[in-house]
Amino acid sequence: MLNQSSDLDRLFQALADPARRAMVERLSRGPAAVSELARPLPMSLPSVMQHLGVLEAAGLVRSEKLGRVRTCAIEPAALSLAEQWINARRIEWDQRLDRLGDYLKSLETEGDDDGSGH
Amino acid sequence: MLNQSSDLDRLFQALADPARRAMVERLSRGPAAVSELARPLPMSLPSVMQHLGVLEAAGLVRSEKLGRVRTCAIEPAALSLAEQWINARRIEWDQRLDRLGDYLKSLETEGDDDGSGH
Repeated sequence: MLNQSSDLDRLFQALADPARRAMVERLSRGPAAVSELARPLPMSLPSVMQHLGVLEAAGLVRSEKLGRVRTCAIEPAALSLAEQWINARRIEWDQRLDRLGDYLKSLETEGDDDGSGH
Repeated sequence: MLNQSSDLDRLFQALADPARRAMVERLSRGPAAVSELARPLPMSLPSVMQHLGVLEAAGLVRSEKLGRVRTCAIEPAALSLAEQWINARRIEWDQRLDRLGDYLKSLETEGDDDGSGH
């Protein structure tokens, strides 16, 4: 039905959870170890790993294990895809408002013409 | 954990479905009757009504029944909330890149100083 439809499904689904958004918020400020991501979250490490899996499957986060530490980083291109979809809607909406504004203005001008013509 | 957390949960959840996104795309171009929203979608009218219910619960769409026709319209403020959350992440990410750039530049300048000093 849409291009990149399943990508957007996974992206918005991944963002529909407060713990996962908190992880994305932290990683937008720079890479972090899983333990650091987990610290402020009120849940077990296995739950954090599960959320991390959803974020990785959506392409929002990548992680790499170096020795005993798994480090996570944001993938800005995925966030960009979600941003573009929402932006496109706002642009269409703004254009509609502009057209409505032009229409109302044209009615007003017609009214003025009538006034000066009589 | 976050302000407006459950609002964002519902918003992103509502956007995580291609049929609901198609409905939001159509309504961004202007109000429409439910029958018009349903026409391009490969599903029954009850399914469309169910998706409409999710969009209304998320605050993305409002609908009004006039006589026998239910007309739907977008609520741009809700889309704005989702847009703001994503924008805030991109700004943090860009700031991080700027700081990295400044740091790399400072290393380069130090290197130049060394070069001219010897």
